[in-house]
Amino acid sequence: MVDISILMGSESDRAIANRVTSVLENSNYSFEVEVISAHRDPEKLEEYIKESDSKVFVAIAGLSAALPGVIASKTKKPVIGVPVNAKLGGLDALLSIAQMPPGVPVASVGIDNGANAAHMAIRILDLCKVSQ
Amino acid sequence: MVDISILMGSESDRAIANRVTSVLENSNYSFEVEVISAHRDPEKLEEYIKESDSKVFVAIAGLSAALPGVIASKTKKPVIGVPVNAKLGGLDALLSIAQMPPGVPVASVGIDNGANAAHMAIRILDLCKVSQ
Amino acid sequence: MVDISILMGSESDRAIANRVTSVLENSNYSFEVEVISAHRDPEKLEEYIKESDSKVFVAIAGLSAALPGVIASKTKKPVIGVPVNAKLGGLDALLSIAQMPPGVPVASVGIDNGANAAHMAIRILDLCKVSQ
Amino acid sequence: MVDISILMGSESDRAIANRVTSVLENSNYSFEVEVISAHRDPEKLEEYIKESDSKVFVAIAGLSAALPGVIASKTKKPVIGVPVNAKLGGLDALLSIAQMPPGVPVASVGIDNGANAAHMAIRILDLCKVSQ
Amino acid sequence: MVDISILMGSESDRAIANRVTSVLENSNYSFEVEVISAHRDPEKLEEYIKESDSKVFVAIAGLSAALPGVIASKTKKPVIGVPVNAKLGGLDALLSIAQMPPGVPVASVGIDNGANAAHMAIRILDLCKVSQ
Amino acid sequence: MVDISILMGSESDRAIANRVTSVLENSNYSFEVEVISAHRDPEKLEEYIKESDSKVFVAIAGLSAALPGVIASKTKKPVIGVPVNAKLGGLDALLSIAQMPPGVPVASVGIDNGANAAHMAIRILDLCKVSQ
Amino acid sequence: MVDISILMGSESDRAIANRVTSVLENSNYSFEVEVISAHRDPEKLEEYIKESDSKVFVAIAGLSAALPGVIASKTKKPVIGVPVNAKLGGLDALLSIAQMPPGVPVASVGIDNGANAAHMAIRILDLCKVSQ
Amino acid sequence: MVDISILMGSESDRAIANRVTSVLENSNYSFEVEVISAHRDPEKLEEYIKESDSKVFVAIAGLSAALPGVIASKTKKPVIGVPVNAKLGGLDALLSIAQMPPGVPVASVGIDNGANAAHMAIRILDLCKVSQ
Repeated sequence: MVDISILMGSESDRAIANRVTSVLENSNYSFEVEVISAHRDPEKLEEYIKESDSKVFVAIAGLSAALPGVIASKTKKPVIGVPVNAKLGGLDALLSIAQMPPGVPVASVGIDNGANAAHMAIRILDLCKVSQ
Repeated sequence: MVDISILMGSESDRAIANRVTSVLENSNYSFEVEVISAHRDPEKLEEYIKESDSKVFVAIAGLSAALPGVIASKTKKPVIGVPVNAKLGGLDALLSIAQMPPGVPVASVGIDNGANAAHMAIRILDLCKVSQ
Repeated sequence: MVDISILMGSESDRAIANRVTSVLENSNYSFEVEVISAHRDPEKLEEYIKESDSKVFVAIAGLSAALPGVIASKTKKPVIGVPVNAKLGGLDALLSIAQMPPGVPVASVGIDNGANAAHMAIRILDLCKVSQ
Repeated sequence: MVDISILMGSESDRAIANRVTSVLENSNYSFEVEVISAHRDPEKLEEYIKESDSKVFVAIAGLSAALPGVIASKTKKPVIGVPVNAKLGGLDALLSIAQMPPGVPVASVGIDNGANAAHMAIRILDLCKVSQ
Repeated sequence: MVDISILMGSESDRAIANRVTSVLENSNYSFEVEVISAHRDPEKLEEYIKESDSKVFVAIAGLSAALPGVIASKTKKPVIGVPVNAKLGGLDALLSIAQMPPGVPVASVGIDNGANAAHMAIRILDLCKVSQ
Repeated sequence: MVDISILMGSESDRAIANRVTSVLENSNYSFEVEVISAHRDPEKLEEYIKESDSKVFVAIAGLSAALPGVIASKTKKPVIGVPVNAKLGGLDALLSIAQMPPGVPVASVGIDNGANAAHMAIRILDLCKVSQ
Repeated sequence: MVDISILMGSESDRAIANRVTSVLENSNYSFEVEVISAHRDPEKLEEYIKESDSKVFVAIAGLSAALPGVIASKTKKPVIGVPVNAKLGGLDALLSIAQMPPGVPVASVGIDNGANAAHMAIRILDLCKVSQ
Repeated sequence: MVDISILMGSESDRAIANRVTSVLENSNYSFEVEVISAHRDPEKLEEYIKESDSKVFVAIAGLSAALPGVIASKTKKPVIGVPVNAKLGGLDALLSIAQMPPGVPVASVGIDNGANAAHMAIRILDLCKVSQ
């Protein structure tokens, strides 16, 4: 079991994933990193989410960045989205991640800002420790 | 069995769906209209797609408009997306629909342009009739 | 003591705050709502944050929406930002809230989407209950 | 006779055209590639469309990307448009291609996304085979 | 024979056309107004351009505003384009009109600014009178 | 006396000016090129415009591209503006040049598109020759 | 003699000018308000600037908002620009006002934010009083 | 005591700060340069502002550029903001700096335009000298 699942939509998002793990390596939380596309591997993604006992999901995606939203529609855990600049400076991904319909929340951080996804995950997990 | 499935992400997209059906009513093709959110009803959506024998899907959605992309990831039929202006003039939905990753194509028409989704579906189905 | 502090930058953001509380009223979590501008009342804001024992902050702001970021710089709790459409369709507020520098994370939801701020807060607090 | 006509507005769009053909080469469909500008060679374009018996048109263009729309106005076959990033990240071309007036549909794929134009063409042609 | 041909892509652009004629009525130049869509009536448009002996064309269009560019590709006379705000504040039309490929110039005025199209036409025609 | 005055706001716009002159060198029209900033050299600019007997002005500028508009406010000759990409992909310059107030027209061509400024100038001057 | 000159490009900017004067009426500084278009009345504007002994200029303008920049090019006093939302949410005016070339500074406040122009003028004048 | 305090949000903004100092070195005004993040060092920033007797503040920041606004909320001196292009061409920083709420003014100059921040500071300080 890990605390945080870090999923990216494509191998090309690896550099941003590394910014997430760089921060998490200095924390007390465990994590794992997977490459699963919401659009190209929907069954694999669904299976992963169902079987995972992670507490927080970080989803990294560019373009029509569906990954965070799809995860948020299949789990009740907090999902943090990282928009990646693949085209248009990342504005497409930011809007795809932030503009979710009411009822299916995704917590968007800034474009390419993997570090803040890690920091947000840490804040959430720290809160739960304190709450105990 | 129907020729065209028209799905919208939310009841608030009904006006745009009506623009699709207004055009299709003057065609020779049959259609059905359903409200299923990709984000709030993923299982219902998946089931619908699996059981449907429609030839073409028209998906209408605003904001982070995931519906067309999710359908395209679960069928090999042509999927036409209609971005709806809910916020930002519909730019968010246009980008979410058009900027799909390679391998999972969605055919985007213009913002709120349900008519052109119908016309595109008719062109595709006409082509198949001619091809026979 | 309350679970969730909902702060808005201006009385004109009240309608969006109501969308947050509408959702929270159907949850098991307590909350309080305050109007404090990050730019016009920095001392009051600082004092509020220091004295608050809320677990999660929801900050609602338009224009150069500094409120969520200022809160995130003064607490280690999770901060959820709601960009409000005051000008430019809310794009200014979305960018101000999402594009935080590394180390000071804010979880942005969509423009005017107070409901999702509530849902995100609930997911975080539910996680902490489960974690116990 | 070919199944798919791939037209680009300018020789500078060749790299995007290659993304279309790379995908089609692994399909069972035949294609041909031509460089014809809608704005600089309108007569040649018109003649090409009239004489072509292609089933699907893929039109690649940047800037004020008129090529897909002009083709769609002169044929009843499905037309797929690929916006090219020449300026402004390709936003100009995406809007020029997607925002067609009702009655003259173009199926826009993402910016520079020649691969998805090919995949969309394949879906359409596969549908027609199945329909027979 | 008239000095200026004013073409609009759709009857819905009439209000902007009236701004052009309001200015021209106070000038010494003659004009005529026609509704011809570049996308829906390409043959009629071509015929009109060929038979016209107008000195200057003013083309008014919204969305993927192809009309000015198509005219410019079929005449060597000066073409002035007026982008109309139909969606996205008219940004789509402005980009479609201004971002023409080298060799096929269109003179874009501001969004909905029919008055300036008239003033530009007057400047051109005044220059020719002076040049004689 | 020259037919066309080509003014640029800054020496850094020289590459775009060269695109104008490259086209004009293959025409029958004479031209001269000057570097005068509307903002830093307003008196020199005014003097130049007053003393010039050019028939057409081409004004090249980036950022808050005031040069074309200032020229248009001080002459009754046709003024063609070329927006330069210095920041924001040139969107700032395009808007500054195109969005002129009614009564002071500027003919905007595309971003960095010096060639089309030349072609537009040629069309205007050709018209005047024919009109004689 | 007045402390602050408030100029607007068009009578239609009056509502924004009133936001400036509403704030200034509660200050100790005198002001006067004039309507002078930089594009339509350049001579009147130049004369006004030369004869004025105001300490600070506030310039209000929409669209291609040249007024603040033209004033800044003709005086060495501080110039504050207020972009007005006439089209595109005021983004055109904001960019025209803020993106000035190096050497000719304009202090831009927010879109339609006449109040902040007044507050900025007061800060500058207060500083000068204190400095004495 | 110095005349002008130049603060930047991050060491990565140094190049833009140098553009400010390059201009100021040729003026008669003294200045100092500090790196203090509004988001990561709020206490240090507050202390700096309280202890400073600078007459004018220049604040340089990218992304969600809170620095100028936070300073403006804690001093009554004039604050000049310089948006830095870190993402999205600097549009995010420009909007964060310019779109301040009424009552807390920031004078925004153009993206990366450190020179104009210096020139604006000089104009303000020159005015105060003249006013004495």
